[in-house]
Amino acid sequence: MMDIALLDEKLSKVLSEKRYTHSVYVSHTAVDMAKIFGLDIKKAFLAGLVHDCAKYMSYDEMIDTAKRYGYTFDGMTLACPGIMHADVGALLAQYEYGIDDTGILDAIRYHTVAREGMTSLEKIIYIADMAEPMRDFDGVDRLRELSKSDLDKAFFEALRLSLEFNIKKKNIIHPNTLLAYNEVLINTREEKQ
Amino acid sequence: MMDIALLDEKLSKVLSEKRYTHSVYVSHTAVDMAKIFGLDIKKAFLAGLVHDCAKYMSYDEMIDTAKRYGYTFDGMTLACPGIMHADVGALLAQYEYGIDDTGILDAIRYHTVAREGMTSLEKIIYIADMAEPMRDFDGVDRLRELSKSDLDKAFFEALRLSLEFNIKKKNIIHPNTLLAYNEVLINTREEKQ
Repeated sequence: MMDIALLDEKLSKVLSEKRYTHSVYVSHTAVDMAKIFGLDIKKAFLAGLVHDCAKYMSYDEMIDTAKRYGYTFDGMTLACPGIMHADVGALLAQYEYGIDDTGILDAIRYHTVAREGMTSLEKIIYIADMAEPMRDFDGVDRLRELSKSDLDKAFFEALRLSLEFNIKKKNIIHPNTLLAYNEVLINTREEKQ
Repeated sequence: MMDIALLDEKLSKVLSEKRYTHSVYVSHTAVDMAKIFGLDIKKAFLAGLVHDCAKYMSYDEMIDTAKRYGYTFDGMTLACPGIMHADVGALLAQYEYGIDDTGILDAIRYHTVAREGMTSLEKIIYIADMAEPMRDFDGVDRLRELSKSDLDKAFFEALRLSLEFNIKKKNIIHPNTLLAYNEVLINTREEKQ
């Protein structure tokens, strides 16, 4: 893996100052959550720091990067360029930042859309991205509280807020976000029975 | 097909007074829309009147009815008994009310969840069910306006309101509703290009 100081320098160059600060905050929030929920702190730190590394690539650059590494986007992701940076971010993390841990790479890949069967690390990065201290929207305080006490409730609330936001905005929604939302609801119901 | 007076009498017996009135209103709203958008008025009338015929069946009765007619629910519908009455309603309409028009039967079947590739009649029943004069919720006035001027915009707004309502309520959402919502958004975008 790339030396962490070099990685940090590279990131600060490809991101705006605000986006770099966001990444550092996601990283810190993810570490706090990893401590609470007993996960590997270094993985949480790295995944949080690198998750948005492809955020400022143009559509053409993202398509080229995917081609270079033999990656195929699913149809819905191609229809929503705003979510492509997560898939491409996982490619850059692997091939240009030298991260080979598939758990970290998947946490980067699924940080925007989510999916069914999310791992705890994937959930932490998904939540930390929405709950880090710079974020400011209705419901963020409750999300922050949950993120310190109940990983699955926090994950469900993050999914719910994301769906609510995108439906209000009349945005296309990747079906995997809904599948993740339904999965948590069904699991919660089964646990109650 | 069963004589319309008999059908009406049968319906008024299996539904509560309020639900029967709702059905009559959906029927009238659907006829108004059929006139505006150039569809078969009789089909709109019948589909609207009969759409909720299975609304008061118990879970066991719905399962038994499906078995009797060799019908299989998809997994997500089985997880949400609240939406099963649409599928079962289409079965009753066919086998017990003697309606053999597949356009009407599908309008009944998809009136709660919707699906990709909805026909105009299916859209009209889906919208009329939400926009009939007894309905009262934030956004219903705009939905009523759209239902008189633009079928696709009204359909999209009805889907959006349904998704918004269910996400607020933390309900499971059938993926077909999201697929229908995304489909309209993508088609609208392509038309603009």
